Amino acid sequence: MEKGLLLVVSAPSGCGKGTILSRILKNPKFYYSVSATTRKPREGEKDGVNYRFLEKTEFENLINQNAFLEHAEYCDNYYGTLKAPIEENLAQGKHVILEIEVQGAMQIRKLCPEAKFIFIAPPSLETLRERLAHRGTEDAETIEKRIAQAATELNFKNQYDYCIINEILENAVSDFKAVVRAEELKIRP
Amino acid sequence: MEKGLLLVVSAPSGCGKGTILSRILKNPKFYYSVSATTRKPREGEKDGVNYRFLEKTEFENLINQNAFLEHAEYCDNYYGTLKAPIEENLAQGKHVILEIEVQGAMQIRKLCPEAKFIFIAPPSLETLRERLAHRGTEDAETIEKRIAQAATELNFKNQYDYCIINEILENAVSDFKAVVRAEELKIRP
Repeated sequence: MEKGLLLVVSAPSGCGKGTILSRILKNPKFYYSVSATTRKPREGEKDGVNYRFLEKTEFENLINQNAFLEHAEYCDNYYGTLKAPIEENLAQGKHVILEIEVQGAMQIRKLCPEAKFIFIAPPSLETLRERLAHRGTEDAETIEKRIAQAATELNFKNQYDYCIINEILENAVSDFKAVVRAEELKIRP
Repeated sequence: MEKGLLLVVSAPSGCGKGTILSRILKNPKFYYSVSATTRKPREGEKDGVNYRFLEKTEFENLINQNAFLEHAEYCDNYYGTLKAPIEENLAQGKHVILEIEVQGAMQIRKLCPEAKFIFIAPPSLETLRERLAHRGTEDAETIEKRIAQAATELNFKNQYDYCIINEILENAVSDFKAVVRAEELKIRP
């Protein structure tokens, strides 16, 4: 069986990445790689679905066992990507989607040169600001912080293989599918 | 304006390449690169549509002027790809489709590393034999020659970027479109 594709997906917050991926993941040929973290679950978050929630000592043991593809500390919590489920799913011919911020993506770029890197971008920072404001879950200051963060992340865009601009959701989903199909048709060495 | 893509397409005879390309070319964002040749027009062939039909001396003058991207002699006739119309259309943002046999494609690979190489393959040589027989335009001996030729050409498949298997026409057309869309979304250096 041909190995699946490892698809690394990044996007600034508010770009609609979650919506696009939930549409893609309706197809069982995709597997969503669930990150491990030591941060506490937020309301409604489920272990194994949103994250694998681990105790700090468990996480550190796994680091020592070299079980992570990448890991980082962020706001006093660990976040990481476990190797084993990715490798198992790829071997079964599934396409593994790894949703990760730009720094983590760049780490994976070095470790997995065969992975495909997809950046999802907003049509503009202005549109992103409107979307975040419209969502109504963050105050003005937080929104401006997110916009500044998004601007920084957009600088990494050119280090990805593909950039999908999410202006119209249907088009972005169809673009994502086109990228995956083209990669399936690509002659692999 | 962003430059268009140079798409080099090869396929063994009888793979349905012509039908796929005629579907793709309905979209005016594609331009079909018409080859120049010194062979005589066959019935129904039109200058500038099927080929640019040139006299031998004209062709040789153009060779001397370095006007060809590639050219070859085949069955005592010259065949070649003129640079100028390709460059003009790419500059206008059009995707240029260059239909060419494998040897010519490999020449272009060296000259235009930015070009994308698409191989259209039959599901199997057996299917190809059936299709050629069904077409009824060639005798058994010619068909076997074409099959042998196709087998040779298939050996070059791995030197292309993409391979589209034309089993069901609709799928092959949609695969072709996916490849083009993905290349449009690709971050170019």
